[in-house]
Amino acid sequence: MKQYPRPLNKLINELSKLPGIGGKTAQRLAFHILNLTDNEAANLADAIVSAKRSLHYCSVCGNLTDQDPCLICSDANRDPSVICVVETPQDVMAMERIREYNGLYHVLHGAISPVEGIGPNDINLKSLITRLQNDDRVKEIIIATNPNIEGEATAMYISRLIKPSGIRVTRIAHGIPVGGDLEYADEVTLLKAIEGRREL
Amino acid sequence: MKQYPRPLNKLINELSKLPGIGGKTAQRLAFHILNLTDNEAANLADAIVSAKRSLHYCSVCGNLTDQDPCLICSDANRDPSVICVVETPQDVMAMERIREYNGLYHVLHGAISPVEGIGPNDINLKSLITRLQNDDRVKEIIIATNPNIEGEATAMYISRLIKPSGIRVTRIAHGIPVGGDLEYADEVTLLKAIEGRREL
Repeated sequence: MKQYPRPLNKLINELSKLPGIGGKTAQRLAFHILNLTDNEAANLADAIVSAKRSLHYCSVCGNLTDQDPCLICSDANRDPSVICVVETPQDVMAMERIREYNGLYHVLHGAISPVEGIGPNDINLKSLITRLQNDDRVKEIIIATNPNIEGEATAMYISRLIKPSGIRVTRIAHGIPVGGDLEYADEVTLLKAIEGRREL
Repeated sequence: MKQYPRPLNKLINELSKLPGIGGKTAQRLAFHILNLTDNEAANLADAIVSAKRSLHYCSVCGNLTDQDPCLICSDANRDPSVICVVETPQDVMAMERIREYNGLYHVLHGAISPVEGIGPNDINLKSLITRLQNDDRVKEIIIATNPNIEGEATAMYISRLIKPSGIRVTRIAHGIPVGGDLEYADEVTLLKAIEGRREL
């Protein structure tokens, strides 16, 4: 025997398909799972299947949700005049964590990347345009795509697409992170920080 | 909304119970799982449940197995005169990987630890004694418990228990790992290496 029993190998194999989980970690996780109670293991398995089954994208903003429209889109207390455009549902959560932003969202599920062959039609962008055409309460679009080539290209593209309609299009600021050290900032970040300098 | 939809939160919560999986990693894994096909997600969930259901301990050696006795115990090509005593099924796998050892195993599922209140009766030790009483082919017990306080205490205990029966009891060597650097070896390892020195 040079291998674990088959069901254990299968579990290790399935676990090691997860991102960032190598063979050793998969093995450690598998043995942990074997030590769970039947109930705990069933809970874990069930959480995987039901998350897959019950979650989908909001038909309005594209965020992950188990109802439609999502909790944010259907919240009457949120300001419908601002839409923050982000790349992923994780980005929505990051924005929500600051507890400052009270507008709506639009999740692109990616960014334009000519190198990877991802064009404007491959991300959730058309629905943003439709949304703006059907909702004249929107006064500002905040583009919060990532500060990399794809994110910047996407921001530029959306900006040129929307500006003619008279809606204000803004971009979140990039610069030295709070608590960060100038000495260790990369050149591009530093350049962005200088470009974005403000009067004191 | 300051939280993900409920099924996603549940999945993140279940994943973060796994050892070494913090909140951020659980979140990354959860989003990865949402991007799996239904089939892939079902495979993962199923692997968890069936590993739990079909695996148990070998009634002879205590190793994890989906049949009884396990593949090693029922392998006629293995040498029944040597039993290697280890703490965990993972240790069996480690031994098997060297492809040198051809004897049998006994898995203790732990080590004696007075501090944690784990005595000789709390580990899979009695069955080793019964095994030796019923099988007079056994000539040597190799104790391969871990080189820490608990492992050493367990080794000493087993040694004193078995020696009177005339069976040879040995302990695996401890010292500087191959490829290791003397400079970075801890004092205890270095001491063990000197204690275990051999004539050249």
